[in-house]
Amino acid sequence: MSRPTARQVAELAQVSVATVSYVLSGRDRPVAAETRQRVLDAARQLGYTPNQAARSLRKRRTQRVCLVQGSLGGNPSDERLARDLHEMADVHGYSVITLAVYSEGRARAAADVLRSGIADGALVNQTGDHFPHDLLAEIVATGLPMVVVRNESVPDGCDVVRTPETQVSTEAVEHLLAEGRTRIAFMAHRQELYRDQPTGRLLGYTTALDRHGVDQRIIVSGADDRVAAYQSATELLRSPDRPDAIFAASDRAAISVINAAKDAGLSVPGDVAVIGVGNIDEGLISNPQLSTVGPLRHDYTDVVRLLFDRLQADGPLPAREIVRPWTFLRRGSS
Amino acid sequence: MSRPTARQVAELAQVSVATVSYVLSGRDRPVAAETRQRVLDAARQLGYTPNQAARSLRKRRTQRVCLVQGSLGGNPSDERLARDLHEMADVHGYSVITLAVYSEGRARAAADVLRSGIADGALVNQTGDHFPHDLLAEIVATGLPMVVVRNESVPDGCDVVRTPETQVSTEAVEHLLAEGRTRIAFMAHRQELYRDQPTGRLLGYTTALDRHGVDQRIIVSGADDRVAAYQSATELLRSPDRPDAIFAASDRAAISVINAAKDAGLSVPGDVAVIGVGNIDEGLISNPQLSTVGPLRHDYTDVVRLLFDRLQADGPLPAREIVRPWTFLRRGSS
Repeated sequence: MSRPTARQVAELAQVSVATVSYVLSGRDRPVAAETRQRVLDAARQLGYTPNQAARSLRKRRTQRVCLVQGSLGGNPSDERLARDLHEMADVHGYSVITLAVYSEGRARAAADVLRSGIADGALVNQTGDHFPHDLLAEIVATGLPMVVVRNESVPDGCDVVRTPETQVSTEAVEHLLAEGRTRIAFMAHRQELYRDQPTGRLLGYTTALDRHGVDQRIIVSGADDRVAAYQSATELLRSPDRPDAIFAASDRAAISVINAAKDAGLSVPGDVAVIGVGNIDEGLISNPQLSTVGPLRHDYTDVVRLLFDRLQADGPLPAREIVRPWTFLRRGSS
Repeated sequence: MSRPTARQVAELAQVSVATVSYVLSGRDRPVAAETRQRVLDAARQLGYTPNQAARSLRKRRTQRVCLVQGSLGGNPSDERLARDLHEMADVHGYSVITLAVYSEGRARAAADVLRSGIADGALVNQTGDHFPHDLLAEIVATGLPMVVVRNESVPDGCDVVRTPETQVSTEAVEHLLAEGRTRIAFMAHRQELYRDQPTGRLLGYTTALDRHGVDQRIIVSGADDRVAAYQSATELLRSPDRPDAIFAASDRAAISVINAAKDAGLSVPGDVAVIGVGNIDEGLISNPQLSTVGPLRHDYTDVVRLLFDRLQADGPLPAREIVRPWTFLRRGSS
């Protein structure tokens, strides 16, 4: 069970040990992109991570980063972000610790854990209303490097990642209206029914209807899981005044809506148009293919890099903001 | 942002503060089951967790447990187990830290983290070949309370949770043979193609075919995600000598196989029978309903309790073993 060494990485990548050190320390040095990639590939192939004890001693750090997630799993985009974080952590010799925050109690526990110095930095992803602004601010105040992915307000001093969710959701619902749909339902996450502030997708729905003078709001729950979505859609589509379009707050739910419609003998998009949120790959194998609102590509390297830039900086960095491009993708289901 | 107190829990549950303390400390005291439940409900409703600093001081512990998972998410059963662990941790005032182990490098990093004393105990769930026996043994040797969910061999001194996966998988494939299927394919997880020891589901497949003198093995990858499964099944079902049954190593993949078959103009189970593994709820809303091999119920309280029993014991406990009941559930797809 001997660990691979920097020398072995150097041999495999056909570079010097110094080059391995430059590349894996994450410092800017003049290393050609192709050489850099060879080193990263060799390090991953051998499972090499820089000597953690030595690095920790030198920097008085834990060599750990913390991922704070809004759920216990099930969201493909969150899984992709987690994967990108783990991969970059591998390359830089960091461990990743994940905390799930799905209640305010859990947020307080997570804050305690973060303040205890368990990690050198944190990426807080989509914890919604559960993680209050004040509690985030308390953690930022300890000087912990932090990146927060959320559209709601974020404390000063951390990097923030946002999406134009409201605007693109509005566009999607306006497309349904332009196609002559008159009874458009929104399938919400359970939490969306109880939030103080609406999510961008719900706000997009109401904004589009308002703009076109449509009074009727049909809001049902079900977006949290595939079975709930199927049951909720089945009930909705059996009602005498069934909707002619459903905008679901997740792609997973939207795919269940398509299945429920077909099982109820309805055609998609003929009888009912369906649009989801997230642009997960599975939308391309649904039949018909799923129209959706979301990122064009699921590459979260830019988000993850914000955190590692902070970890590797010699001094404090100014807070940065990334707005990730989202778009409405019209496919067969609408 | 004031924390709820034991007194508030006591008032809501209409019991004494001492009773709250007995119930939430997890010690055996004569508290009626109904009273106990009232206290637990009140504590959860208020988001109350016992004072961690005081408990930690008293016991010299971190009040954290660690969940070591074999993937970054996507497996509904793993999510249910994670949920049960978080809920029991909430009740007992523990934080939960999750580590993802999807490579031997990650397993070594996780072992370092566990040995550093980050948590008071660990639940190691389905890390497959990535977490070698010797490395697990090194952690157990430090005295860390551990529960390991795996069918492969497990070091002495930790609790182990197993499933009769091989036996029930054999039964499922024998059912296909008894129904006259002659060309049965197995859709594997990527890792299953490279393991030294076959998983129970793959061993069940080969065992059943061996018993019935069927020589042909058709093994394809694709079980890891829904899109890969769809593509793999589409290719398989377009071949001139297409299989008349597919046993997929995950229910998610099996549902994609059903969709791929229907999109290719084939009937399920007429042209091709499909069986999955896992018994996820979604199998009941697929059309036809999915035959599967897995647990009848997704309640992992018994597994999680093994860990908390160890955490609350005054001395060392003997190692225990749970064999969780699995069964072959024949539904419409086979």
